[in-house]
Amino acid sequence: MTTTEIEVRTYDRDCVATKFDRVVTEEPLELRIVAGDAMQTLAVTMRTPGNDFELAAGFVLGEGIIRSREELAGLSYCVDKRIEEEQRFNIVNIALRDPGLPSLEQFVRRFTINSSCGVCGRASLDALAERGLAPIDDDIRVAAALMYDLPDRMREGQRIFSNTGGLHAAALFQTDGTLVEVREDVGRHNAVDKLTGWATIEDRLLSKTILCVSGRTSYEIVQKAAVARIPIVCAVSAPSSLAVELARRFNVTLLGFVRGRRANVYSAPHRITA
Amino acid sequence: MTTTEIEVRTYDRDCVATKFDRVVTEEPLELRIVAGDAMQTLAVTMRTPGNDFELAAGFVLGEGIIRSREELAGLSYCVDKRIEEEQRFNIVNIALRDPGLPSLEQFVRRFTINSSCGVCGRASLDALAERGLAPIDDDIRVAAALMYDLPDRMREGQRIFSNTGGLHAAALFQTDGTLVEVREDVGRHNAVDKLTGWATIEDRLLSKTILCVSGRTSYEIVQKAAVARIPIVCAVSAPSSLAVELARRFNVTLLGFVRGRRANVYSAPHRITA
Repeated sequence: MTTTEIEVRTYDRDCVATKFDRVVTEEPLELRIVAGDAMQTLAVTMRTPGNDFELAAGFVLGEGIIRSREELAGLSYCVDKRIEEEQRFNIVNIALRDPGLPSLEQFVRRFTINSSCGVCGRASLDALAERGLAPIDDDIRVAAALMYDLPDRMREGQRIFSNTGGLHAAALFQTDGTLVEVREDVGRHNAVDKLTGWATIEDRLLSKTILCVSGRTSYEIVQKAAVARIPIVCAVSAPSSLAVELARRFNVTLLGFVRGRRANVYSAPHRITA
Repeated sequence: MTTTEIEVRTYDRDCVATKFDRVVTEEPLELRIVAGDAMQTLAVTMRTPGNDFELAAGFVLGEGIIRSREELAGLSYCVDKRIEEEQRFNIVNIALRDPGLPSLEQFVRRFTINSSCGVCGRASLDALAERGLAPIDDDIRVAAALMYDLPDRMREGQRIFSNTGGLHAAALFQTDGTLVEVREDVGRHNAVDKLTGWATIEDRLLSKTILCVSGRTSYEIVQKAAVARIPIVCAVSAPSSLAVELARRFNVTLLGFVRGRRANVYSAPHRITA
């Protein structure tokens, strides 16, 4: 289900051939919030099928709709037997213990500050703080030499990447470099949601773990890590300005360009030892 | 404005140093629809500042809110002088000629099919067809040898990439390989919106052009190309399954893994000649 076989025409200099190849599956997933007798669509996200409950749990955690597993009453597919099998598993119902539905209006306007025109990166960070997000306060220390190895260890942990070249990955490591879990998706943010959602469902704390992501780090990735209380985030490529600002504000150690025996540390460098 | 200078700690094997480096700027942009006396927030997207009006125009084109420049009455920043300068340019008001506001509800539920649980890739393609999107019908032909060169020509056209390594790029080419425009952004979809929005504002048809994007192609990228009537889309990396399905359904020629003197053609291969 994570890859789909298709026919492709290959060009190699002047040679043309037809072969079968595999591409990453991308399908919409509708996330619905169920609270008491009420139900509403929260979002429709394009994702690679698999670990959908984790994705759902990670999404609502990241958006501040739940804070822990306790607030979750259940996760289920909306399976209607009249529908073809391949279409059945594209809706996840997220049941909340709290009988009141969160306001969708508030959700859509998360970043929008009411008074006049004040939408900006700093306002976005303020909004996170107002939601109750505090800087991460812990005493873990990790050697730079250990960090250098994590992208390779993540790649080893991926099953599909080499088949299609089309998947983003995210992995959690212990501070001794042991791989905890790896998830993949056509969307980088989904891969991270699948990890933080896994931890939520398993009721695991991530305060002693390191998140590694393929590609670049944006605001969204660091936000999801900070909400899940992950103290160290590392990436193979560059971070954005707002990812760095967010990491500094919430005391997340953010590394970029972790390649070979090199790395850049953009925030909270005290956790990385030479 | 597209890059921000920050302090970074660099690790190189066992050497630690502190230097100044540039990262790509990421800031929220709120898009507001204005029609008659009414106004509503359409979306908040994280983007790299610059070409914001193009991004706004491309976004509403891609979402089917406008079909051409004629339906656009104007684009403006919401500038409130009481606000700090750096924060002022993060809201674009998109004024429509039609005095009625499009339904935000409909927009949020775009992919959601009313009857029971039928949200799936095929339903998403059906929804595009119901919006009036027709297959692209044209007679352009491009040699594979010309396609091989486009990623390098796009890179040449980028000004910032080499500075930060953090930007996605999208470029439009004529069918003889001449670069028309290139745009960059922290989000790949934004880079494409900036191009299609540029064409919308300039009232240019894209029916004889090729879109080249860095990285992977997802549903969203091919959708934006199809709506803008771009017949050929090429990428350095892999497409997703739904990107291929969409391209086949709407007769877009989709190429992936355009590297060196090789390429894969996933749909409508008649436009590529050996």
